[in-house]
Amino acid sequence: MSKFAERINSMENSAAVVKRLFGAMNDPEIISFGGGAPAREALPVDIIREITNDIMRTEKRGFEALQYGPVVGIKDLRDVVVNDLLAPKGVSAKSDNIVITSGGMEAINMLCQLYINPGDIILVESPSFVHSIEVFEMFQARCIPVNMDDNGMDTDDLEAKIIQYNPKMVYVIPTFQNPTGITLSLERRKKIAELGSKYDVIILEDDPYRDIRYSGSDLLPIKSYDKTGHTILANSFSKIFSAGSRLGYILANDEVSNKLFDVKTATNSHTSMLPQILCAEFFKRGYYPAHHKMICDLYRERRDVMMECIDKYFPKGTKRTTPDGGLFMWVELPGGINTTELLIEATTNPEVKVAYVAGEGFYVERGGKGSNCMRISFGGVSPDKIRVGTERLGKLINSKLK
Amino acid sequence: MSKFAERINSMENSAAVVKRLFGAMNDPEIISFGGGAPAREALPVDIIREITNDIMRTEKRGFEALQYGPVVGIKDLRDVVVNDLLAPKGVSAKSDNIVITSGGMEAINMLCQLYINPGDIILVESPSFVHSIEVFEMFQARCIPVNMDDNGMDTDDLEAKIIQYNPKMVYVIPTFQNPTGITLSLERRKKIAELGSKYDVIILEDDPYRDIRYSGSDLLPIKSYDKTGHTILANSFSKIFSAGSRLGYILANDEVSNKLFDVKTATNSHTSMLPQILCAEFFKRGYYPAHHKMICDLYRERRDVMMECIDKYFPKGTKRTTPDGGLFMWVELPGGINTTELLIEATTNPEVKVAYVAGEGFYVERGGKGSNCMRISFGGVSPDKIRVGTERLGKLINSKLK
Repeated sequence: MSKFAERINSMENSAAVVKRLFGAMNDPEIISFGGGAPAREALPVDIIREITNDIMRTEKRGFEALQYGPVVGIKDLRDVVVNDLLAPKGVSAKSDNIVITSGGMEAINMLCQLYINPGDIILVESPSFVHSIEVFEMFQARCIPVNMDDNGMDTDDLEAKIIQYNPKMVYVIPTFQNPTGITLSLERRKKIAELGSKYDVIILEDDPYRDIRYSGSDLLPIKSYDKTGHTILANSFSKIFSAGSRLGYILANDEVSNKLFDVKTATNSHTSMLPQILCAEFFKRGYYPAHHKMICDLYRERRDVMMECIDKYFPKGTKRTTPDGGLFMWVELPGGINTTELLIEATTNPEVKVAYVAGEGFYVERGGKGSNCMRISFGGVSPDKIRVGTERLGKLINSKLK
Repeated sequence: MSKFAERINSMENSAAVVKRLFGAMNDPEIISFGGGAPAREALPVDIIREITNDIMRTEKRGFEALQYGPVVGIKDLRDVVVNDLLAPKGVSAKSDNIVITSGGMEAINMLCQLYINPGDIILVESPSFVHSIEVFEMFQARCIPVNMDDNGMDTDDLEAKIIQYNPKMVYVIPTFQNPTGITLSLERRKKIAELGSKYDVIILEDDPYRDIRYSGSDLLPIKSYDKTGHTILANSFSKIFSAGSRLGYILANDEVSNKLFDVKTATNSHTSMLPQILCAEFFKRGYYPAHHKMICDLYRERRDVMMECIDKYFPKGTKRTTPDGGLFMWVELPGGINTTELLIEATTNPEVKVAYVAGEGFYVERGGKGSNCMRISFGGVSPDKIRVGTERLGKLINSKLK
């Protein structure tokens, strides 16, 4: 049979890791801290039914929903991004600079189409989001890790690696990062924008969790400190509206957003119309503020329970992050426990049946880094199940230390 | 500013042509034979409102619509493809070999991700569909034209060019082709499948119009003659259900559909859920047969009026195709008229205000080939407007011959 393209070979590692990591999600008995899906309770089913009903009763809008639409997305939704999501966060933008994508992942994909030649270097946080790494591999980029600490990506290490590697792009998830839940400090946000301008490097700011803040103070996006257009902001509606709708967006300068028109055309013509219309209406009808408060309250409670339970049930010497938002917590186990090996037992032992994502897969450096870590996703699990799941998992971990 | 990837430079020609060709679509006064959109009357707005209402009232399905879903698409929709669309056309398939895409364009994009290295040769019909060419250019393929006649792609020329160029892929739109409306004969369908197997070349069969047949006899897809897995079938729900839903699919063998899982993950995780559910329900509730008959009747009438009007209003010596289905007719003008130049006057002269797509852009060989041709899309225009539009356009063309 005909050979696959070269890029497919460079995907093999991550794709295999990702499949293994998420394989257990379909067992209904498992308490899963594994996926990154929003909570069921955070999905506005009733509101969307109401809006759909209204939209499809109006002849003009009904046809609009079913006919071809604008390549870069409907104006209403681009206006929502500008007025409801960016302006309140201190980012001033024109709707002409917004390109609607089919979810946040497609934004990453399209920006790789636009910028990445095979062999280009992308600097990524260590650890970083596996699915983005998978996209970078498909585009045959070489990913180089940059150190992180409790304030996010280490900008001294970043600058040193920019000088050393002459990268095309820096990929950063600044707020409630996936997988760690860590937030990049204000000073470092400024610094990263400056480094992009100074060294002519694209800063790809992937910020899908930023609006799910439930403690601490809001920080401006890196994009708000960008004076040269080197920072490109990618975001998603998956966590604040609906993951299944596959809606995201890119904010970029005129030159870049013009080129993204061509890339989007050659990707899938445009994003599905009905989800775009429903999402725009959700904001225009004023549902977002109350919905937003509800989901932040929901996730705050789950984070609090998760922190309490890890502190209670996990062994002494366990380290964990304290996320101010988002869905993820990062846990480092003591005693040289290998979380990849543990995962098999955790998901199959009938007295445990708990899933998480093993830490190793998030490190592009491989070689066992993060092998004692786990990403714990608390967003989609009820407080009761968080208690049961952490107790069982804690027991298993403790049994390995004896 | 940072340089774009090399692939972006290779897109520049087609992207510019495409933008120019479609630029006039927004002037509401224009009678447009230009776009490829389905008729307003062919969009099942009321049915979709009803289905959405039911779906979003059921708790389980409401959440399913808004939550992350399967990478390759929901089982219900893959079953619809297998049972309602492929089986009646003589193609037996398993739903595991179906990958749901965000429209037909994304199917082309994903298959390029899977197979095309920069510099690879893709053989295409002369003329072929501009947007697919644009995707091929983004993947830095070199497109080589294969002759066509009234029976579609010339398989002798195809075999000669396979031997001469050692292509990676053959791209063919076998049924009511875009832009010509021509249908590939049965013998040639068999032959193309055989050539793919014999020379180890991927046959990308792009068949979005096949179900809109309103005269003549149905022909099996090339895929039904494929014994080795070299033929991959791509199709779309845009013309039979809704273009704005952005739904399409790929049928490929086990090895290829497994790899497409990784490509789809790294493209946009999965296709939007609500449109998938609505489309599957549309078929499962039995709405398709009557809807299908309605749209075939609608397009047949428009084709008949279009043929009658071209024969009546266009100058002697005009040649046109007689499509047995689909939305397009191909017209060749006499007297050396340049349709690219004529288009400016046709769309701006207040006594004409008619748009079409100039022929040149459909030929990868460029150099003026097709400069006396036009693609006429009759699907989206009412019979009355077809009469007015062709009369005005015919008058303009005739005035150039005096």
